[in-house]
Amino acid sequence: MVDKFDKVVDLAKRRGFFFPSCEIYGGVAGFLDFGPMGTLLKRNIENKWREFFIYKHHGLVYEIETPVVMPSRVFEASGHVDHFSDFIVECSLCHRRFRADHLIADQVKDIEALEGKSAEELNVIIHENNIRCPECKGELSKVSKFNLLFRTTIGPYTENIAYMRPEAAQGMFINFKNIYSIMRERLPIGLAQIGRVLRNEISPRQGPIRLREFTIMEIEFFFDPLKPMCNLINEVNNNKVRLLTEKMIITKEENPIEITIGEALSNKLIRSEWLAYFMAISQKFVSELGVPENKQMFLEKLPNERAHYSAQTFDQVVMLERWGWVEVSGHAYRTDYDLSRHQAYSGYDLTAFRRFETPKKEEVPIAIPNVNAIAKSAGNNIGKIISKIKNMNARELKLALENGPIIIDGIEVKPEFVEFKYESRTLSGEHFIPHVAEPSFGAERLVYVTMEYAYREKNGRVILSLPRNLAPIKVAVFPLVNRDGLREKALEVYELIRAHGIIADFDDDGSIGRRYARADEIGTPLAITIDYRTMDDNTVTIRDRDTWEQIRIPMNELIEYLKSFFK
Amino acid sequence: MVDKFDKVVDLAKRRGFFFPSCEIYGGVAGFLDFGPMGTLLKRNIENKWREFFIYKHHGLVYEIETPVVMPSRVFEASGHVDHFSDFIVECSLCHRRFRADHLIADQVKDIEALEGKSAEELNVIIHENNIRCPECKGELSKVSKFNLLFRTTIGPYTENIAYMRPEAAQGMFINFKNIYSIMRERLPIGLAQIGRVLRNEISPRQGPIRLREFTIMEIEFFFDPLKPMCNLINEVNNNKVRLLTEKMIITKEENPIEITIGEALSNKLIRSEWLAYFMAISQKFVSELGVPENKQMFLEKLPNERAHYSAQTFDQVVMLERWGWVEVSGHAYRTDYDLSRHQAYSGYDLTAFRRFETPKKEEVPIAIPNVNAIAKSAGNNIGKIISKIKNMNARELKLALENGPIIIDGIEVKPEFVEFKYESRTLSGEHFIPHVAEPSFGAERLVYVTMEYAYREKNGRVILSLPRNLAPIKVAVFPLVNRDGLREKALEVYELIRAHGIIADFDDDGSIGRRYARADEIGTPLAITIDYRTMDDNTVTIRDRDTWEQIRIPMNELIEYLKSFFK
Repeated sequence: MVDKFDKVVDLAKRRGFFFPSCEIYGGVAGFLDFGPMGTLLKRNIENKWREFFIYKHHGLVYEIETPVVMPSRVFEASGHVDHFSDFIVECSLCHRRFRADHLIADQVKDIEALEGKSAEELNVIIHENNIRCPECKGELSKVSKFNLLFRTTIGPYTENIAYMRPEAAQGMFINFKNIYSIMRERLPIGLAQIGRVLRNEISPRQGPIRLREFTIMEIEFFFDPLKPMCNLINEVNNNKVRLLTEKMIITKEENPIEITIGEALSNKLIRSEWLAYFMAISQKFVSELGVPENKQMFLEKLPNERAHYSAQTFDQVVMLERWGWVEVSGHAYRTDYDLSRHQAYSGYDLTAFRRFETPKKEEVPIAIPNVNAIAKSAGNNIGKIISKIKNMNARELKLALENGPIIIDGIEVKPEFVEFKYESRTLSGEHFIPHVAEPSFGAERLVYVTMEYAYREKNGRVILSLPRNLAPIKVAVFPLVNRDGLREKALEVYELIRAHGIIADFDDDGSIGRRYARADEIGTPLAITIDYRTMDDNTVTIRDRDTWEQIRIPMNELIEYLKSFFK
Repeated sequence: MVDKFDKVVDLAKRRGFFFPSCEIYGGVAGFLDFGPMGTLLKRNIENKWREFFIYKHHGLVYEIETPVVMPSRVFEASGHVDHFSDFIVECSLCHRRFRADHLIADQVKDIEALEGKSAEELNVIIHENNIRCPECKGELSKVSKFNLLFRTTIGPYTENIAYMRPEAAQGMFINFKNIYSIMRERLPIGLAQIGRVLRNEISPRQGPIRLREFTIMEIEFFFDPLKPMCNLINEVNNNKVRLLTEKMIITKEENPIEITIGEALSNKLIRSEWLAYFMAISQKFVSELGVPENKQMFLEKLPNERAHYSAQTFDQVVMLERWGWVEVSGHAYRTDYDLSRHQAYSGYDLTAFRRFETPKKEEVPIAIPNVNAIAKSAGNNIGKIISKIKNMNARELKLALENGPIIIDGIEVKPEFVEFKYESRTLSGEHFIPHVAEPSFGAERLVYVTMEYAYREKNGRVILSLPRNLAPIKVAVFPLVNRDGLREKALEVYELIRAHGIIADFDDDGSIGRRYARADEIGTPLAITIDYRTMDDNTVTIRDRDTWEQIRIPMNELIEYLKSFFK
């Protein structure tokens, strides 16, 4: 049976929204091309995201751009080289390779959630259910890890390994300190990015829903863990969200609770105010794409399902006709994981500075070499030992020597070589690693979701009832016929509308009925027809995409009408 | 000496425009990160490009989006796997690798242009000049080719080779037929794309000028080679451009001729009207970035310097203080090269259809099997032979049989097996492969160029005199002091300005002088100060970035003033 997914995908292809990439070469799974209409719709969605997440937070959230290709060191630090993988099995006969959990789900009825299962657990399931190669019935290998990073090399040396980023986040983490400094060391601060990312899925299915290359829209929001309060939380405290929490999932609850952001925070269901704030904003954003709130919810990920960097994650999911609940955004409380890792791997100070309300006095140890003691037992090394003692951090040296002699660069330093005295120093603040809340969206999937929710049929015809401000083309202009000056008049109206910055199409091809149908299919909210009466009294008809109703208005009111319609 | 390049790069880093990527890991040559100000400036430049090249041509040029990663087959067809390479030499002692032409240029004074030289010619130059490894003086290997495509693999099979696109063009070529059909088979039609591309330069120098990953802004404009006229050419016919043609370069002419587009076309200096049209538009576009026309010219590439796909190429170059004439856009007449290659490699019909003005009659051969002749010499194969004859294209079969018997799928077909008769058919048109004119820009380099041309110093202070509509922040709002209600009033003004869609900054940190200086450095055209008089008479001062002059206007005129200033 043809379902909505098939219909939307067919419409997308027929009218130039999106279609599989490289179709003339047989296509390549997991890659999508966007045609003229899809590119406009996608950019409108991206710009709406900018409005909700960046412009609204001007002075707090800054958009940046970093490359798709990054050196391997970045992803060793981020943990992706070790952890960003799926389990794979290979057929011992035909050597085809499959994603282990998909293969199991395909062949075993009513199997439990497989996300987070270990290789050993998957091996047991495969063995117990006698799962075999779906192509040739061959026996399967043991499960192994397949890393999902696309790999390449930079420059003429093959050992110079690099990866294509699977998230934009790392470009934000490694730039945090730099931009924090440029922006005069204020916290909280958010860095945002809209850009391509790549994930080398083993065998992506689900067309536009699961892509190997897609556009991520992501914020890394840095805050002081000792001041985790969100100063904008009052704006969303009373917003209701639908949550399916970890506890509810474990107890097999299927229906979400409806709860205000304020309650979710005071009940500690959401562990960060900023995370909760962005979840509320995300719900509003997705609603404006045309998805009603009762078709959305937030699903907490279980500990074994969460990405390696996250202390708490909610997936924002929406209901799709064929695919059920599908993730449209992820909300991860990444704590100080990423900055700590990058600090350790780069040796670069990535801390922020927290000013004390009143400066603190502190007793600081100073190391004084005991020359007599050194001379007694160290002979020729006196000078070297004295210099080592002076160059070391006194606090660390003191701690080390409490357990007896230590060796520094091959030279023994005994406790009696050093005396410590204390100095009093005034500290204005202290360094710390900020915590991070991350909302993260995929733009292509939102394009599909928006189209599925806009898809209607009426009298056997297709209407794409896109929200007005998302429609690729706002207005279509038609001459009723192409003679008697109507075409020229219609072109005049078309140019007038465009001069006001409204994206319009001119169409003089085929019957008016067919032109209305084409405009409906690409979701153009209004169609203006120039007819013989226009030539008499300078009025035009405006037809509404959704109601098919027509009104007639004077030309000199047209622009005002359009502006208020699209406001 | 610190030159303008150093100063701009320093400013870019200090104020968050751009800086080397991955600095905490020591940086990676050829990759750039854009900070908050640079991202806004870059997007303003991209949107200005959209205005000039896409919006202006609505209904003629369509923006699309295709992936960065594409299967190898695409780049085999496009010729990049064979031709997109630089020459490299390796040191036999330390095994460092170098770009051959760069190494020669570094070590041999006054060497002629090396672009387009063969491996053998480079070997001779290296030998004759006794060029050695600049690091260890080791002997150099023979010159070899290094392909500049970044390589990866898709999915779990390592033989599934893919490349990162070095231009967006191929995504347009492989989609041409599809979008041409969706858009009702009209020519000319342009496909445009703004997106990331990657070129694995051997050792990029010149910071932001030569990148391994950058944002391309590109149009592939498809037209009928029998109707190559540009219907918009009258708009630019009298525009003067500065050309340095192939002939002038060969005769060592260094100064360009100044000539109108119309003359350049009638003198056949530019071989395509559409190429010439986009060159004129490009000159206007780059002028609006702040580069005067006398600091621009178009440099024709010599045949051995041109890319493999091009019949004629002009580089649009601008004068930079340190680097001399630097390419900002390329204008290539790609003819039918790419579509022909993709048609051959994919076996997919990529032709357009040209309708005859009046239908043509044509005599079409029809193949009639001669059953008696077949039966005589072919025994059991009669049925098979008859079916082969019927399934083949009669015209091709006739041509083939003119040279005697042929073998089809192992079965001999003799000339006497077939008789041909002719039928008269009416053809409404014919199929052909369109020609292509391509203008292509790099966004990051334009950001640098724009900044260099905007860079000024005044009284020892830096001013970035960006064109008003490109400035990242349009207006800065300052309270003179942070007490007596001035701060609250300034915040009110700031919110008012933002509510009108104007990007504004609020700054209450440090002296007014320092705040003006910060605003000047990031190119903010206007700064509004709220002072004690504001509280009395509801007026504000507006200070101009370039003149440092201040005027005072009533609050209720502010928004109108800003709107007309930025119009």
